[in-house]
Amino acid sequence: MKPSHIEHIGLAVRNLEESIRYWEDVFGLQCYRVEEVADQKVRTAFFKIGDTKIELLESMDAEGPVARFIEKKGEGVHHIAFAVDNINKALRDAEEKGIDLIDAAPRPGAEGLQIAFLHPKSTHGVLTELCSKSADEK
Amino acid sequence: MKPSHIEHIGLAVRNLEESIRYWEDVFGLQCYRVEEVADQKVRTAFFKIGDTKIELLESMDAEGPVARFIEKKGEGVHHIAFAVDNINKALRDAEEKGIDLIDAAPRPGAEGLQIAFLHPKSTHGVLTELCSKSADEK
Repeated sequence: MKPSHIEHIGLAVRNLEESIRYWEDVFGLQCYRVEEVADQKVRTAFFKIGDTKIELLESMDAEGPVARFIEKKGEGVHHIAFAVDNINKALRDAEEKGIDLIDAAPRPGAEGLQIAFLHPKSTHGVLTELCSKSADEK
Repeated sequence: MKPSHIEHIGLAVRNLEESIRYWEDVFGLQCYRVEEVADQKVRTAFFKIGDTKIELLESMDAEGPVARFIEKKGEGVHHIAFAVDNINKALRDAEEKGIDLIDAAPRPGAEGLQIAFLHPKSTHGVLTELCSKSADEK
């Protein structure tokens, strides 16, 4: 696996609109997209910065993973997502290196990407997402 | 304030060499620099990825901020650093917006940068670093 860049940094927030205002007002960034991702029970908001993005995540469900994250740790960095060419190959590479996969196969994420998470217990505490534009085998 | 890009993502790690091996072996990244930052009581290691970097932080002091972070939260994302043109102006902008500053004035960080931290209690839980190549007023 050799990611080309950090696709986004995911931040868990309590209130999407309030956090959008923070990033727009204090950092001068522009929210270009708000999207619900039903699969992860979140509403997301995106900001471009350099060749990466900030993705805000607000839980739509008090039992959802982002709500549980905030309950345990408070608002803050939730995950880091790496852009890879071929997510199936990247997942196999990671598994061969002994990394625990949360998602054994890619699934649809925000912005039409195919995504999969690696477990933080085998990534030095960093909840790690891999993503690519397509799940095609190469 | 309008940062140009994310300068780096800081990850708190227990053992620098072990974590360097993880990022090199699993992610195919290349550590290009290891540096002690006495001021923050850490040893750091850097990897380029796209227009940003991953900075690993290992505490050299059991009472240092990174050691206390790991004791409380475990290994993981410690801070996000944003590149700004003029760090003095960015700090004044942030203060005017009501952000609590950890550093009222820039101080020397790794890689010869001038750095300053914003307090996570006013940045939605994200320990936020600003950095620029010089602290010159513009």
